[in-house]
Amino acid sequence: MNEPDITNITVILNNPRYPENIGAAARCCKNMGISSLRLVNPERLDMGKIHKMATHEALDIVEQMKIYQELPEALQDLHFIAGTTARTGRKRRPTHFPGEIAAKIASFNPEIRTGLLFGSEKWGLKNEELDLCSSVVLIPTSKFSSINLAQSVMILCYEIFMAKSSCQVVPRPRPASFREMEGMYNHLHGVFEQIGLFQKQTPAYWMRNARRLFNGKNITAKDVKMVRGFLRQVSWAIKNAGK
Amino acid sequence: MNEPDITNITVILNNPRYPENIGAAARCCKNMGISSLRLVNPERLDMGKIHKMATHEALDIVEQMKIYQELPEALQDLHFIAGTTARTGRKRRPTHFPGEIAAKIASFNPEIRTGLLFGSEKWGLKNEELDLCSSVVLIPTSKFSSINLAQSVMILCYEIFMAKSSCQVVPRPRPASFREMEGMYNHLHGVFEQIGLFQKQTPAYWMRNARRLFNGKNITAKDVKMVRGFLRQVSWAIKNAGK
Repeated sequence: MNEPDITNITVILNNPRYPENIGAAARCCKNMGISSLRLVNPERLDMGKIHKMATHEALDIVEQMKIYQELPEALQDLHFIAGTTARTGRKRRPTHFPGEIAAKIASFNPEIRTGLLFGSEKWGLKNEELDLCSSVVLIPTSKFSSINLAQSVMILCYEIFMAKSSCQVVPRPRPASFREMEGMYNHLHGVFEQIGLFQKQTPAYWMRNARRLFNGKNITAKDVKMVRGFLRQVSWAIKNAGK
Repeated sequence: MNEPDITNITVILNNPRYPENIGAAARCCKNMGISSLRLVNPERLDMGKIHKMATHEALDIVEQMKIYQELPEALQDLHFIAGTTARTGRKRRPTHFPGEIAAKIASFNPEIRTGLLFGSEKWGLKNEELDLCSSVVLIPTSKFSSINLAQSVMILCYEIFMAKSSCQVVPRPRPASFREMEGMYNHLHGVFEQIGLFQKQTPAYWMRNARRLFNGKNITAKDVKMVRGFLRQVSWAIKNAGK
C-alpha cells in the first residue's frame, strides 16, 4: 500500500470535554497520516492526560496542535469542511456515509485544505455549527447508540486513509497456474488409485470432491508443491511398508 | 439503512492489558450491533474501569462477557476466525484489509459463528495464535504506527456493520467448525508422521503449510469428511502394503 499524502487534512474538535479524547484523537491522526489537529474552546486542557493517550508516537501532533476560542476562526483557511453527526432528522441536511465523503475528499487536488469537524462529547455539533460545513457525515451506529468522540475521529480518518491509498496492493504469493492445478489433480488421481479409494466410490466421485476442495480457493504455486510433496511421500511409504 | 443482524459475531480479546480497553471494546461492540465479547486471560479485570469506558449503553455486553484461560477454549464453537495484525512480513500469511474481510463475513449464512480476534496491546497476536485463524486482517496505519486496541476493534466492527447493512445472503453449504478443522489437522499430523515426512522437515513446517493451504478457504464440513476419508485410506494402504 502506498503511503498517501494527507498533509492537507485537519481534524477539528469543537468544545471537547475530556482531555483523554483529545490525546486519543491525536493518536488517530498519527495512525492515519493526518498531521494537524485543532481545538476550539476545550473544557479542560490537562496536558498530562492528553500526552498519555496520544502516546509518544503522536507527540508532534500534540505539540503543533492549535487552539481557538471560536469555531469560525478555526475554519478560516479551509476549502472544504465535513461536519459529523450521529443523528438524522427531518430538519437536518442530507448526510453522507464516511466512505462516501472519504472518496470525495480523496479526489480533491492537493491544494484543497479539508477540515473534519467533530462536536463535543455531550452535544455533538449543533445545527448552527453544521451550517458552517460543506457536507454532513453520518457515522452510523446500531440503534443510534452514542459513539466515543475519538472512535468517530478514527472511523472518518481511517476511511480517508483507505480512500487516499489509491493503490491498495498487498503483496500476495503467486497463485498456481491451471497447468499446475491439473498436474496436482492427476497426481491425486494416481494416489487415490494406489491406496484403493476407487474400490469404494468411482474416480469421478473422488475427483469431483477434490476439485471442489481446491478450485477457486486461491491455491498458490507453493501450496501445490507442498501437496505434491505429501503425495510423493505417501507413495514412497506404501512401497516401502513391506520392507 | 437497515439494522443488520450481527448476533453471530463475537469479539475476542487475547491477553488484554488495560481494563479501559476492555470497556471501550464493549462499547464498540454495542455501537456496531455486536452482542458478544470474550476475554482470554486478561491481565487486570478492574470492573470499575471497564464499566466507566463501556458506559451504561454497553452494560449488557460487559455483564454477559465470558472469560477463558486459554485461547483455543474461546474459539471452540466458532466457524470462522479473523485474526488481526498491524504487521506484514515475508514469513507471514497473506493478509486482507478490513473491508475485504467484512464483505466476506457479511456474506455468511446466519448460522455461521464468526470470531474477531485481537492480540494484546503489547505484542499483538503471535504467529502460533494467527495459525489458529481462518484469515488474517491487516489494519493499515500510516508508517505502521501502533494503533490503540479499542480503535482496532472499532475499525473492524464498523466495516462489518457497514457491510452487513447492505447485504443479501445466499445459502451455502455448512462450513467446518474450528473443532472439525483442528480434528483434521490432528489427523494430518498423524499421517505426516506415519509416512515419514517429519524426517525431512519439522512438524511445525508441515503443519503451518497445511494450515496455510486450508485456513480461510471456506472448507466445508463435507470437505473435512472427504479429506479424513482419504487419510484413513492412506493409513490402511500402508498397513496392508506388505500383505
